[in-house]
Amino acid sequence: MRCLARLSSKALLVLCLLLALLSLLLWSRCSQNSPIPPDFPAERRGNAAEEEEASPRDAPKSPGIPGSASKGALKYEEIDCVINEEHTVKGRREGSEVFLPFSWVEKYFQVYGRIAQSDGNERFEFSHSYSKVYAQRAPYRPDGVFMSFEGYNVEVRDRVKCISGVEGVPVSTQWGPQGYFYPIQIAQYGLSHYSKNLTERPPHVQVYETAGDGNGDGNGNGNGNGNGNGDWTVPKGCSLTTVWDKSRLSGVKQFSCPESSEGVSLELNNARDFIVSFDLKFQGNGSISVVLESSERNQLFTVHYVSDTQLIALRQRHIFYGIGARSDWSTVTRDLLTDLRKGVGLSNTKAVKQTKILPKRLLRLVAKGRGFLDNVTVSATAHGAAFFAASRWLLRNQDERGGWPIAVARKLGDGFKSLEPGWYSAMAQGQAMSTLVRAYLLTKEPAFLGAALRATAPFKLPPERGGVRAAFMERHEWYEEYPTSPSSFVLNGFMYALIGLYDLKETAGERLGREARLLYERGMASLKAMLPLFDTGSGSVYDLRHFTLGTAPNLARWDYHTTHINQLQLLASVDDAPLFKEFVKRWKSYLRGGRAKHN
Amino acid sequence: MRCLARLSSKALLVLCLLLALLSLLLWSRCSQNSPIPPDFPAERRGNAAEEEEASPRDAPKSPGIPGSASKGALKYEEIDCVINEEHTVKGRREGSEVFLPFSWVEKYFQVYGRIAQSDGNERFEFSHSYSKVYAQRAPYRPDGVFMSFEGYNVEVRDRVKCISGVEGVPVSTQWGPQGYFYPIQIAQYGLSHYSKNLTERPPHVQVYETAGDGNGDGNGNGNGNGNGNGDWTVPKGCSLTTVWDKSRLSGVKQFSCPESSEGVSLELNNARDFIVSFDLKFQGNGSISVVLESSERNQLFTVHYVSDTQLIALRQRHIFYGIGARSDWSTVTRDLLTDLRKGVGLSNTKAVKQTKILPKRLLRLVAKGRGFLDNVTVSATAHGAAFFAASRWLLRNQDERGGWPIAVARKLGDGFKSLEPGWYSAMAQGQAMSTLVRAYLLTKEPAFLGAALRATAPFKLPPERGGVRAAFMERHEWYEEYPTSPSSFVLNGFMYALIGLYDLKETAGERLGREARLLYERGMASLKAMLPLFDTGSGSVYDLRHFTLGTAPNLARWDYHTTHINQLQLLASVDDAPLFKEFVKRWKSYLRGGRAKHN
Repeated sequence: MRCLARLSSKALLVLCLLLALLSLLLWSRCSQNSPIPPDFPAERRGNAAEEEEASPRDAPKSPGIPGSASKGALKYEEIDCVINEEHTVKGRREGSEVFLPFSWVEKYFQVYGRIAQSDGNERFEFSHSYSKVYAQRAPYRPDGVFMSFEGYNVEVRDRVKCISGVEGVPVSTQWGPQGYFYPIQIAQYGLSHYSKNLTERPPHVQVYETAGDGNGDGNGNGNGNGNGNGDWTVPKGCSLTTVWDKSRLSGVKQFSCPESSEGVSLELNNARDFIVSFDLKFQGNGSISVVLESSERNQLFTVHYVSDTQLIALRQRHIFYGIGARSDWSTVTRDLLTDLRKGVGLSNTKAVKQTKILPKRLLRLVAKGRGFLDNVTVSATAHGAAFFAASRWLLRNQDERGGWPIAVARKLGDGFKSLEPGWYSAMAQGQAMSTLVRAYLLTKEPAFLGAALRATAPFKLPPERGGVRAAFMERHEWYEEYPTSPSSFVLNGFMYALIGLYDLKETAGERLGREARLLYERGMASLKAMLPLFDTGSGSVYDLRHFTLGTAPNLARWDYHTTHINQLQLLASVDDAPLFKEFVKRWKSYLRGGRAKHN
Repeated sequence: MRCLARLSSKALLVLCLLLALLSLLLWSRCSQNSPIPPDFPAERRGNAAEEEEASPRDAPKSPGIPGSASKGALKYEEIDCVINEEHTVKGRREGSEVFLPFSWVEKYFQVYGRIAQSDGNERFEFSHSYSKVYAQRAPYRPDGVFMSFEGYNVEVRDRVKCISGVEGVPVSTQWGPQGYFYPIQIAQYGLSHYSKNLTERPPHVQVYETAGDGNGDGNGNGNGNGNGNGDWTVPKGCSLTTVWDKSRLSGVKQFSCPESSEGVSLELNNARDFIVSFDLKFQGNGSISVVLESSERNQLFTVHYVSDTQLIALRQRHIFYGIGARSDWSTVTRDLLTDLRKGVGLSNTKAVKQTKILPKRLLRLVAKGRGFLDNVTVSATAHGAAFFAASRWLLRNQDERGGWPIAVARKLGDGFKSLEPGWYSAMAQGQAMSTLVRAYLLTKEPAFLGAALRATAPFKLPPERGGVRAAFMERHEWYEEYPTSPSSFVLNGFMYALIGLYDLKETAGERLGREARLLYERGMASLKAMLPLFDTGSGSVYDLRHFTLGTAPNLARWDYHTTHINQLQLLASVDDAPLFKEFVKRWKSYLRGGRAKHN
């Protein structure tokens, strides 16, 4: 105060003026001089009075905000917003406009939003749903991309325990932590790699060892480089020789190395790609390991592929996959990215633990025991290998009834009886058909087509006889993803089954494909008749359990809703019923907040 | 500036401090120092990965607002809100919280809100729907209040052209401006007055003339006052005498007055109630008129009840209703409030013109021509008269097939064939049953019960044979409000039909009511089976046209949704199936923004 008191009048005057200016500034900022247009038309109801009399209050009025917008500067203030007479949230008010906090809007309406950068400015991005629909490549073909599966990454999912070393296909923990082969997942693994193979560019392939056969022969792809003679280290007590293999008509590397030794090792030093592939034949026990540098503080991890049948194990920084005896020649193709992450994330629960760890560099490949190696490569992708691993798994594991029995019990929900292990799924059958048909079209091996044809058998039997054929109101045939009692009528599984039948009837020809065609046609007739029952006017339902159990509808979350749309788009590309186009259009509009009309 | 310069340092100092304080105040107000809690939990998806793979992006994430709330004072600013990548609205932002304008929320989500006074403060009242559900008086009974119809005011609706003077029931312009008797409307008119009669206190009745019989005898109610001898003015050329009527065993007033005269007039001078009632018998032509003072600048209007059959006419301030020959004794009961407003609002369109005009005072009743009058009263309500007018209309107008044919064509919507004039409605049949059963229970006149029993006949025939019985998937019988081709399965009309059948089977007894009981039981079984098909997970559908036509669902607007709930509450009070209680609970929750779960 003293120093202030000492100030001259002039200085005080200036200070006064400055403070006055500040007040003015703050004031104008605070009250937002430009009034927000009170764009508040009261909702007009379509056809106000209907024939009979619905409403006790005879003319229900839309309340609307009274148009008492003050003409002057609009004050910005907090206002209590009472929600359905139940609770209160704090909103903001400017004149006749009220602003509701998005934190409330989000939860109340189940919508999405975030502040995002755009051209250097921040803006708020509101979205009604989180899913996007893909654009159908018209028209769909049995040898083409499967729906939008080129965007699927089955092996990355936390419900995939790992890729089996013995089978080369994913092991699921979807319905139980023990891990089992789930035919739907395996078919989708195949179809996604098939589709990626069609949509991605051919991968870069680095060839490390062909045992003197030169560049990129044998099973390798031709666009890599490398001289075909690897940079090997052979420690004392181990041997490595190039020998001629009569069955392969090619030179191969023969190794012999006690398990206790360091093993013979092939320098890889590849920081670019992480898929290792090699042809292998063990003589007795052995292992092939890959030493890699990880993104986790450059720690070294070793992934061991061992001649046993254990699924997966982790000990310190060593990850083990059993790859079976391999006493005959076969190709092993492993994605080190997946193998590392599934090993590090190994858990006893249904879900693989989250990890951010990545391989940074493949250092070397190490062989122990006794056996032969050939065609060691590292590449960015190996979609063909994954696709055929899935296709051949399906071939090997189809049972005598044409089905792929599912090994775990499944209870779809309250009110349904449990499906006991060994049940078939129309979706598994259909997705297997789509996979097998593609394998047949690529290879012309009759076994693939034969398996696909046999896969129709469960479509001809009702659930109580081990089949997948239900009927809606004893009239519309439906192929059940879950052949439950009572029927569940899951939509997306049914459409996958139809797509499989389509693939098969298109591929098998008039005579062989007759059964599939009939099943497809009957199923499509059911779909066209029943599709409206899945339309809620603002989304879709996942199944018809509300009808069969008398419960609440089981609304499809947005990713299932978009799957429905994607499937309908696919079907619309091969069937010109206007219904499909109309549903696709309307169901797409729901993703943006559209709604069917009310009366 | 001069005056400022002259101020002492001290004064300047004080000014400085004041301004500083003001700045501080504004600053704190402006920036809302207390940060809004960023209550923004990212939506957790129930069971993230399902068995089969729905989504191309494998782990769809809820975007959520990044938790970068600044710790300091929150700035208030405008922010562009981009809606579904389609358009932009101006929101407000405070730190990490974004506020969306209700003018947008309202239209986008079809919700309601308004600023309202509460305890002297203004607050914003948000409501998900505009309708309220009534509380069921448990349990429902055939002689009790009909649902929530005590709140209905059928005659007020702008689609009611007027109350017919000849028939005493509403004339509808619902589906055409010409006006016609619509049995549903007539039954609802009866049921609403029946229900009001049970829930309202008995009305005040003023007795003006009983021709010497004393207070409140005859048809009149007993709780009014008046000496039973009216204050009459008899102009020259007219006569008015009290005579004995043998058929009535009562004294009556005989009048004789040329049409060209002023008529004999009875002083009413009643500013309290506006329902006039009198017993009347014309000898030849005649008219009874009521002169009233209106709320419209005290203008006088005269409502004439004339011995002809014209429906309604308006000439200057004279309104005419034909009441038929009335050559035998009958009671005329007219609501002057309705008669005035329907006359003033008379139009050639489907809707009666809006008017705010009201009667203020009934001045006098005027009789012309030759005839007899008795029991002239004015009362607040005359629900019994309205109820019996409806009941007796139904009795007179039932055809030889047990139905009340509807005289206008009706096209329910695109895709449906038109219903040609003469169609029956299960809703009309049901509502008529509910009315007739009540009339029977009050009067014990067998004719009412007989008519109700005959009304079941159309329930036994399919639409192509003139009936109302449809079947869902050839299995579930359904009574069609609109017996369309294809079937429409309108829910509320079906439930009204069931309520009518319930009233009938409860009233008619084991033997007579057998048919009604069977129809009721079959219908209830269908309702229980099919109700889930009407549940959208956030509301209900009006009908199943989406299934029968393959179109979008026809969502029920909120007043129909609440009618569905009201009807289900009624049925739940007489049938203890848990389904009804569950649906009532869930469907009520939809009114407050509740939703069925998604998978």
